[in-house]
Amino acid sequence: MPQLKKILAPLLTIAILSGSAVAVAQNAPKPEQLIKWRQSAFQVIAWNNGRVKANVEGTYNKEEVVKAANTIAAVANAGLGSLFAPGSDKGKGWHDTSTKPEAFTDKRFGELAGNFIKEANELAKVAANSDQAAVKAQFGALGKTCKACHDDFKTKD
Amino acid sequence: MPQLKKILAPLLTIAILSGSAVAVAQNAPKPEQLIKWRQSAFQVIAWNNGRVKANVEGTYNKEEVVKAANTIAAVANAGLGSLFAPGSDKGKGWHDTSTKPEAFTDKRFGELAGNFIKEANELAKVAANSDQAAVKAQFGALGKTCKACHDDFKTKD
Repeated sequence: MPQLKKILAPLLTIAILSGSAVAVAQNAPKPEQLIKWRQSAFQVIAWNNGRVKANVEGTYNKEEVVKAANTIAAVANAGLGSLFAPGSDKGKGWHDTSTKPEAFTDKRFGELAGNFIKEANELAKVAANSDQAAVKAQFGALGKTCKACHDDFKTKD
Repeated sequence: MPQLKKILAPLLTIAILSGSAVAVAQNAPKPEQLIKWRQSAFQVIAWNNGRVKANVEGTYNKEEVVKAANTIAAVANAGLGSLFAPGSDKGKGWHDTSTKPEAFTDKRFGELAGNFIKEANELAKVAANSDQAAVKAQFGALGKTCKACHDDFKTKD
C-alpha cells in the first residue's frame, strides 16, 4: 500500500513533532514560575546594589563589596533572558509582572541587558582590583544601565 | 562644677551610644526586607538547581551548566548569613518566613550553611572542568547539603 504510506508518513511526522513540542512545553517552566524567578533575581541584584551603595557612600569594606559585586555579576550572567521567554509577558509571580509588553518585542531590551552585563562584569573587576573611588565611579556606570532599561521597559508601580 | 560633670559625663556617653545604635538601626534593613531578600536568594538558587538537574538528567549543555553552577556558588558566597540577622526570625517577606526559630539559636545552622557553600564552590569547579557524570555526582553532594538544612531548619509548608 505505497499510497497509504505516502499519506501516513507526513501525518506520523506531524504526530512525532507535535509530541516533542508537547514534551518541551511540559518541561518548560510556566510563565508564573519564570516571573517569580526573574522578580527574585532582581531582588538579589537590589540587595547587593544596596550593599555596594552603602559601602561607597560610607565606611568601605572591600571584602563585602567584592562579594556583592560578584553576586550582581553572576546573576547578570546567569541567563536572565531565558526568564523573559515568550508567553511570560503577562502573569503573576510574587506579584504582577512589572515588565512592559514592549520588552518582548523591542530588540533594545536585549541591547540594554547587554550593557548591564558589561558594566556588572566591570564592577566585579574594579571591586577586586581598585579602591572606593573607582568602585563608586563604576557603580554609577552600572546604575545608568539599570535606569536606562527601567525607564523604557519597567512599569512604574 | 566637677560633680555635675561626673553625673553628666556618663549620661552623655549613654546618649551618644544610643544615638549610634539608633543610627545603625535606621540604616539596617527591616526584618521584612531581609526575609524578602533571602526568599529571593533561595528562589534564584532553586531556578539554577533546576537547570543543572535538567542538564544532568537529559541533554547536557556545558555552557548552561557552568552559568547555573556559577550563579549558585555566587549566591551561596554572597553572605546569606547577613539575611538571617537577629529579629528576622518572624515576619513576612514575599510570604511568612519558612525559617524555623531554631536557625537563629542553633550553631548547626551556620555549620550546615558552610557545607552548602563548600559543595556549591565544588560544583562550580566540576562544571568548568569535568563532564556530565562528574557534575551529576557533585550535584548530588550539593543536594544533600540543601536537604540537611531544610530537614532541621525549614518549615514544611
